[in-house]
Amino acid sequence: PVSTDPVGTDPASEPAVSRAHLPEGDDGSAGTAVIVGSGLIGASLGLALSAQGWRVHLRDVAELALSQAVSLGAGVSTPPSDVQAVSLVAICVPPSAVAELVVEVAREFPAAIITDVASVKAPIVAAVKQAGGVERFVPGHPMAGRELTGPTGARSDLFEGRPWVLIGDEASGQAHASIKALIQSVGAIPVTMTASGHDAAVAVVSHTPQLIASAMAAQLGSVDDSVLDLAGQGLRDTTRIAASDPHLWGQIVGANGSAVAAVLDGVIADLQSVRSALGSQTAAVTVESLVQRGREGQASIPGKHGGQAARYSAVAVVIPDRAGSLAALFNAVGELRVNIEDLTLEHSPGQPVGLATLFVSPPDADALSKGLEQAGWIVHR
Amino acid sequence: PVSTDPVGTDPASEPAVSRAHLPEGDDGSAGTAVIVGSGLIGASLGLALSAQGWRVHLRDVAELALSQAVSLGAGVSTPPSDVQAVSLVAICVPPSAVAELVVEVAREFPAAIITDVASVKAPIVAAVKQAGGVERFVPGHPMAGRELTGPTGARSDLFEGRPWVLIGDEASGQAHASIKALIQSVGAIPVTMTASGHDAAVAVVSHTPQLIASAMAAQLGSVDDSVLDLAGQGLRDTTRIAASDPHLWGQIVGANGSAVAAVLDGVIADLQSVRSALGSQTAAVTVESLVQRGREGQASIPGKHGGQAARYSAVAVVIPDRAGSLAALFNAVGELRVNIEDLTLEHSPGQPVGLATLFVSPPDADALSKGLEQAGWIVHR
Repeated sequence: PVSTDPVGTDPASEPAVSRAHLPEGDDGSAGTAVIVGSGLIGASLGLALSAQGWRVHLRDVAELALSQAVSLGAGVSTPPSDVQAVSLVAICVPPSAVAELVVEVAREFPAAIITDVASVKAPIVAAVKQAGGVERFVPGHPMAGRELTGPTGARSDLFEGRPWVLIGDEASGQAHASIKALIQSVGAIPVTMTASGHDAAVAVVSHTPQLIASAMAAQLGSVDDSVLDLAGQGLRDTTRIAASDPHLWGQIVGANGSAVAAVLDGVIADLQSVRSALGSQTAAVTVESLVQRGREGQASIPGKHGGQAARYSAVAVVIPDRAGSLAALFNAVGELRVNIEDLTLEHSPGQPVGLATLFVSPPDADALSKGLEQAGWIVHR
Repeated sequence: PVSTDPVGTDPASEPAVSRAHLPEGDDGSAGTAVIVGSGLIGASLGLALSAQGWRVHLRDVAELALSQAVSLGAGVSTPPSDVQAVSLVAICVPPSAVAELVVEVAREFPAAIITDVASVKAPIVAAVKQAGGVERFVPGHPMAGRELTGPTGARSDLFEGRPWVLIGDEASGQAHASIKALIQSVGAIPVTMTASGHDAAVAVVSHTPQLIASAMAAQLGSVDDSVLDLAGQGLRDTTRIAASDPHLWGQIVGANGSAVAAVLDGVIADLQSVRSALGSQTAAVTVESLVQRGREGQASIPGKHGGQAARYSAVAVVIPDRAGSLAALFNAVGELRVNIEDLTLEHSPGQPVGLATLFVSPPDADALSKGLEQAGWIVHR
């Protein structure tokens, strides 16, 4: 059950999980944390920790971002009064600045466990090691964020149900266990990997997709509006993450060169093989083969629900495009006692109707369709 | 206002627009149509025309697809009793079969205007011309369909608000005007282009995005499940259309080689430029430059609503994941008299909450946020 209290107004509220392994302050509260960097991830972490009673001190060289994050309730901008009382420092800045900051804050806060959230791990681990090492440093990477940046997109629930990679192994000790409990307390699913394993994985699921989305979108700059007026949902979905932050992505991919190269080489080879065939007799067969392999690869992506390949049945319902229609629809659904797992709403531009697609457990789909039809809705399975 | 009658049960209902330019039967009804091919597009067109009172005769070499389309109400599988009475023939088959069928049906139905829906136009226009030409042929392409295929995904409203390209010019005459009125009657937005202009446009907005989505997804086939468990919405969106039909896409891209090559060359060159820079000092700058260009290109895609760059404000609301929660939310929205333009629902896997993001006109966003918060909802702007 979700609290109905606004986030961050009740610093004395109980955290969601046992604090047995959490870094704790001397007074038995959730403790004092310093978050360096108040962008989307830093501010969201600040919101989540504040909601659990942590005293969060935010730092950012960007004054606007810092004041925005503070005004959202992610923490305070004043420094902690007692450096010994700081039990957690989270470095939430772009990758190139992380390693140096880890070493700095380790000196500044001698009792704190230190973590970071950068999208690339091996270069950071290596740089910290080269600087002498920080035993209390547990590198991390929450798989959350999408194309947004900055504190204005921050949400206390940003990490809920998302994988959060921690670098280490079974022998990683108390600091690792503490950070693991911490990220569980904000709803994330801890996944322990090696730094190089992480970097290879995100090259596949995140960094290379970013490059190909950007490369596709880059072709649109020189195109007439009349062409783009024909764009459908396919182009929009394929290029959505092209709206991401160029400077941040330059750092991320720049720091993960060899892992990205391995995946990108495969993409380029496949595209070149199609390109060479275009105009020849083998064009259709070559394209068909690539699309077939893509179809199989796409089907191997697990469903939304944390690693389970959940499959829902889709029930599409035509709805009048006016205030109250969705409420009427969901009242009808509620009366049928069916739980909706996912939903998309699609407008019919220039027309007075829309289409809501409801995703439900397959056993529920029949009852839902029939019940809605009996209630007068136009339903497509 | 949308009819609440189930689709296709009222053949005498009035069509949505004047029939002044529609092909009409001798008895003054909407006429008799033959649709060749009962896949997603053919069956959807059959549903839409049937709903307006057309007598629709479906043909398909695939018996299962034909019987599915008939059972959906898209038409009958019997041939028309009087070939002279057929005023419209729509060829809704994969591109490679279109030209021959156009010539065939022109002989079989001497009074019919003929159109097609293939995704590539110049080769079809050339082939029909080479076969002697068919003056009553108006080539077309509805920009609808997404990654679905087959009649089971058919919807009578599939074309509503979608661009529908017709090949021709101002001097295209009565057949062109008739088809234009017809596609307007099913809610589509007619766009007249040359065949080569169309093919160049869809190479940008549809064919190349398909190839890059497939090429990205093709890399996932050899990847461990533990890697794919880290996949977020970015990878899912970027590869969604990779679920498309391989054989159909082989034909489409195979028939549009030179136009696709022109766009694909740009994509490959951009990816190669990044690939060459990876591991060098210029990697970050090269990636940043590509992502920047991609960001500008992505921003040039118009909003959902038919060519207008509509921009909505997003209001995210945390909702308990149980039956009735969405109804309660939309009741609250309804009481605030705010119209929702778009909506996404995002689950928090393994957690008892979800996040609904409501997209509304910017002037409505403040009132919506405040009103929902006052009603006890947790709201993020």
